[in-house]
Amino acid sequence: MAAAELNLVNDTLVLPAPLPLDGGQSLERVEIAYETIGTLNADRSNAILLFHALTMDQHVVSAHPKTGKPGWWSKSVGPGKVIDTSRFYVICANVLGGCMGSTGPASPHADGKPWGMRFPVITIRDMVRAQVALLDAMGIDKVHAVIGGSMGGMQALSFAANWPERTGAALVIASTARHSAQNIAFHEVGRQAIMADPKWEGGDYYGAGKGPEDGLAVARMAAHITYLSEAGLTDKFGRRLQDRSAKTFGFDADFQVESYLRHQGLSFTDRFDANSYLYITRAMDYFDLAEEHGGRLASAFATSKARFCLISFDTDWLYPTAESRTIAHALNASGAPVSFVELSAPFGHDSFLLDVPAQDRVIAGFLNQ
Amino acid sequence: MAAAELNLVNDTLVLPAPLPLDGGQSLERVEIAYETIGTLNADRSNAILLFHALTMDQHVVSAHPKTGKPGWWSKSVGPGKVIDTSRFYVICANVLGGCMGSTGPASPHADGKPWGMRFPVITIRDMVRAQVALLDAMGIDKVHAVIGGSMGGMQALSFAANWPERTGAALVIASTARHSAQNIAFHEVGRQAIMADPKWEGGDYYGAGKGPEDGLAVARMAAHITYLSEAGLTDKFGRRLQDRSAKTFGFDADFQVESYLRHQGLSFTDRFDANSYLYITRAMDYFDLAEEHGGRLASAFATSKARFCLISFDTDWLYPTAESRTIAHALNASGAPVSFVELSAPFGHDSFLLDVPAQDRVIAGFLNQ
Repeated sequence: MAAAELNLVNDTLVLPAPLPLDGGQSLERVEIAYETIGTLNADRSNAILLFHALTMDQHVVSAHPKTGKPGWWSKSVGPGKVIDTSRFYVICANVLGGCMGSTGPASPHADGKPWGMRFPVITIRDMVRAQVALLDAMGIDKVHAVIGGSMGGMQALSFAANWPERTGAALVIASTARHSAQNIAFHEVGRQAIMADPKWEGGDYYGAGKGPEDGLAVARMAAHITYLSEAGLTDKFGRRLQDRSAKTFGFDADFQVESYLRHQGLSFTDRFDANSYLYITRAMDYFDLAEEHGGRLASAFATSKARFCLISFDTDWLYPTAESRTIAHALNASGAPVSFVELSAPFGHDSFLLDVPAQDRVIAGFLNQ
Repeated sequence: MAAAELNLVNDTLVLPAPLPLDGGQSLERVEIAYETIGTLNADRSNAILLFHALTMDQHVVSAHPKTGKPGWWSKSVGPGKVIDTSRFYVICANVLGGCMGSTGPASPHADGKPWGMRFPVITIRDMVRAQVALLDAMGIDKVHAVIGGSMGGMQALSFAANWPERTGAALVIASTARHSAQNIAFHEVGRQAIMADPKWEGGDYYGAGKGPEDGLAVARMAAHITYLSEAGLTDKFGRRLQDRSAKTFGFDADFQVESYLRHQGLSFTDRFDANSYLYITRAMDYFDLAEEHGGRLASAFATSKARFCLISFDTDWLYPTAESRTIAHALNASGAPVSFVELSAPFGHDSFLLDVPAQDRVIAGFLNQ
């Protein structure tokens, strides 16, 4: 579909005011790269703010500028699609700390050199705060809905909790209100893999060749396993060999699953910045919506007027259904209208990005209420 | 308990004949380091061959020579204990490919230099074959039982399938008859972490300083998560902070689980050889007992006369109960006597090493039949 039919815009905004951060610092001249699809209506009431996941970006429907691949949710966003851009104006911004145009550790510091590890540690709420500033700049007081899967769901929860008057609805898919010990553990493995790579150079690798690609690839491999289900891996690969009829009794990628994982690791390094991976995983690990609200999750939603919809997947072991159930209980306790459904899909956590017709029906039903 | 009371012996045998390997090569002058506890009776009928797991070794009850920690199953093996060495003569050998005295990649090649990656890729059956040669050298035709957990269970299965006349019983705990795609995937992450470390030097790092410690630590961290349950990690660590009252907004180990994992990674490098980790994980990934027997698991046990006992744990997601059930079905189909129990324990895969009284009762009951 051509950009004109989609009313597709890619742009970057420099926030007009310094952005205060949860860590106490503030950031000057923050740039937020974003994509919009559709047309904002006259009373500015048809916007949907879509939040992306850890390794995604603002390229929801547009081809990725580095990989050339279709946008990460092009199957679901567009005219006549589940998120119908003939009706809604969809906005998606690269998160603060990211590496696709928004200010992050690879961006220039005031001294002209990249921030590197001098970049402040940010939170999910900081990411959302930057996107609220984007809405301000666009003159949008209230969006029709916020939507996000995985880390996007954390942002949707944070938005609904902290800017309750600014959305009418929140759709949270395959997500959680706080990172568990196991979630933190997997991220810590990834961070240690990056930091163990001598080419990381304490984060000061920009302009110095390839950077910590080996470490970043290992981080991606470990994380990627958590995005898939055991049964899904067995269905997809089992113990099948890769382009050979027998084991080689060596350390090549004999098994298809090894070859696949290596490819996942390597291709990731072409499109992602290792320091961004450190900062964004840290923000996710720090996320605990209850903690921000006196230790009680229901308190987070006390002043919300939004409708909520929660979707989990039965094979998602990264953010299993129990995490969504915890959110649903908190919303019930706060008196918020909430629908919650666990969908059956074989793809594990990644189900939210893949072809699950039941998810389409739930999303369309929720948005069109 | 003193060594004398245990009748504890640590010794090393040089196998008198070359050891043929599944990969087609054979190894000369293989050394097998082993520990025995108890006394072999006059008719040599009271031996139990105990197989260790991936990162364990022959130090079942003796203090580990590098860490000083108690033997890995000292709680269960000894006079009057679950595996009662006043009755049984327990033998445990460091696996072929290991790094605690048995021949492995750190051992000298005929040219005097360490094998490194010239060491042949071995299989679980090769490991068992070396231990059968140890039994031969000891003059033990048949053991009372073979016992193993995790990779030890794979060896117990391989022993019972391939040397069926040489054991009266096989006890297989928290194990599997073949490595799944997910199992292979996690091991591949670990191998890539080691190989990505420039200090690995293609495996030729011996005598050249510290070797690929950073990569090995990352491998251990990733693997360690798979040994624990999500609920166990939450109970043990949750989101509790490490020796601090608030998040530091940095990349230190703010969370206890981060600190714990880093410690697990670092301490592992003091006692384990990175190349051994590569070879042993490769052997596990290659393990598929059905494949060795015409693709039908029941065929593996066709000539076995042994009694079998299988134990799984409800929180073990590395080798979940379904894997033991598959083995039980194959044993049923082959007409072998088998008891199979799933035990409830909160510790995940590591339950087999920890304090689970129900496991003690099952083991004692099985051995004393």
